[in-house]
Amino acid sequence: MKFATLANGSLDGQLLVVSRDLQRAIAVPRIAPSLLDAMQRWAAVQGPLQDVYDQLDAATAPEGSFAFDPAACAAPLPRAPQWLDGSAFLNHSHLMDQAFNKPPPPMVDTVPMMYQGASDDFLGPCDDVPLPSEADGIDFEGEFGVVTGPVPMGVTPEAALGCVRLLLQINDWSLRALGPHEMKTGFGFLQAKPSTAFAPVAVTPDELGPAWRDGRVQLRLQVQWNGERFGEPHGGEMSFHFGQLIAHAARTRRLTAGCIIGSGTVSNAARSAGSACIAERRVIEKIDQGESRTGFMRFGDRVRMQAVLDDGQPGPFGVIDQRVVHAQP
Amino acid sequence: MKFATLANGSLDGQLLVVSRDLQRAIAVPRIAPSLLDAMQRWAAVQGPLQDVYDQLDAATAPEGSFAFDPAACAAPLPRAPQWLDGSAFLNHSHLMDQAFNKPPPPMVDTVPMMYQGASDDFLGPCDDVPLPSEADGIDFEGEFGVVTGPVPMGVTPEAALGCVRLLLQINDWSLRALGPHEMKTGFGFLQAKPSTAFAPVAVTPDELGPAWRDGRVQLRLQVQWNGERFGEPHGGEMSFHFGQLIAHAARTRRLTAGCIIGSGTVSNAARSAGSACIAERRVIEKIDQGESRTGFMRFGDRVRMQAVLDDGQPGPFGVIDQRVVHAQP
Repeated sequence: MKFATLANGSLDGQLLVVSRDLQRAIAVPRIAPSLLDAMQRWAAVQGPLQDVYDQLDAATAPEGSFAFDPAACAAPLPRAPQWLDGSAFLNHSHLMDQAFNKPPPPMVDTVPMMYQGASDDFLGPCDDVPLPSEADGIDFEGEFGVVTGPVPMGVTPEAALGCVRLLLQINDWSLRALGPHEMKTGFGFLQAKPSTAFAPVAVTPDELGPAWRDGRVQLRLQVQWNGERFGEPHGGEMSFHFGQLIAHAARTRRLTAGCIIGSGTVSNAARSAGSACIAERRVIEKIDQGESRTGFMRFGDRVRMQAVLDDGQPGPFGVIDQRVVHAQP
Repeated sequence: MKFATLANGSLDGQLLVVSRDLQRAIAVPRIAPSLLDAMQRWAAVQGPLQDVYDQLDAATAPEGSFAFDPAACAAPLPRAPQWLDGSAFLNHSHLMDQAFNKPPPPMVDTVPMMYQGASDDFLGPCDDVPLPSEADGIDFEGEFGVVTGPVPMGVTPEAALGCVRLLLQINDWSLRALGPHEMKTGFGFLQAKPSTAFAPVAVTPDELGPAWRDGRVQLRLQVQWNGERFGEPHGGEMSFHFGQLIAHAARTRRLTAGCIIGSGTVSNAARSAGSACIAERRVIEKIDQGESRTGFMRFGDRVRMQAVLDDGQPGPFGVIDQRVVHAQP
């Protein structure tokens, strides 16, 4: 199934079921008003939602359906119980350690790194990104993520994979000038992580077919900055799978239905794949060419992200297409 | 005004207005079903809630009111949009740097340290605390906190004080064996911070009279571990006031109504005040006596926390009284 959320001024927005080809959508207020509500009552709503989805893909569009407009969408979950973002592509972690000029953390290859992000105010796929200053080092981070059902404390990585309900595509906005200080405090990212953005469509894992395999989203993430190719790293190189990330998050506490777990920046060992964030390109430039040449984003800049199949066909999440703007005080 | 939340199985619980003397309470479903809802519609509900509060304090208890039972309470906000915990008592920060054997972070005296905690699954004042292992170094942290209204990005510390809607008393459960690794990653606390607990009663700042002054809760926090005195540090020694903490949190993003900002462990320079967490006592023992003698909590142990006025009278938040238990897998 494919879901989106119409921005309607409410905190959780209006749940939409979206057709397989992302062309049509329908609201289902009698089944569930919002995607968060559906996550919280999944056993009761899963069947009825599947029926609507099947009808939406039939030859005759059902009454009440309309053309799907990603620009009218909020994040699939405009707010979530938790937003926990890993750094599961160790290629990226190792490069970033060089960028921050710090030794690799202990156990970096065996224990996932993960930070707790704000989850009350996510951005939609085409929302402007208001930020206070270009001097903060404005950067995007292309990621994949999952939405969980309820997860018991102490879940195993294998059992945790069974808690995955939906897959997501994410732009984890970052302010690189603020990160190093917050890392040095040991308390983690806070000002360095403004509101995170999401592609319009959340999908059940079966929608990916063989591209959901080994607990990883096996798609390339095409990233363009101001219309130019920036990278298209492949999600299959994730060093920890999503079950491992969920189990890490639930080691000392349970998770409630609707929690979002992110992969961290998609990153490949092959230089030809490019990068999914500017910071990584900058450190590669430093390593390969002696100095960082690429600057961070300016107000007015745009970033576009879209997952694609190995044959280049568009993936199921739709497109993130955002512009950075100067926040008005 | 004084508010509490009856645990009724729903995610946000049932809002109660509590009498000034904490003896009686009344549900107000026609005004607001939950405290989170009241925070989100504060301008509309503040007056009607004040009317109910005034009636509750009148000589004749209004129809529908009942004896207030803290043990039936959830946290005042069982879930909140964000939970951001500072470390605003620098006496504690400086001691803890010694405990973690690390140099003080840069700008520690001028920039508050703050981590983002999980906010989807708080514990009530008398809830058992299920944890997986005594080996994790189970510890309490007695704190004060505030609930904010909507806070714009870039708010000044002075304007941020005007965003304070409610005051809280908090027990920020911590697992000390897991903290140092998570600090070393730079990504901050996650497994080291299981679900946080709250005293039953949230109060508007006017309830404290002169004990809400300079953006600080000017009360002592009495802490008992298994019935024995552990400390009673005073909230007035907070090095950053709550307006500064809120402004720090909102530097690069707005906050939505209902966010909770914590003070970090209440801590005083005078050794005679004792401590509000075991980790601090342990490092004081190490400094003053050459080694840490006090161990962390065992399953079955209890902690009790209550704010008191300078004359020893109970403060307005009620009592946190919790027992640590072994989480069942």
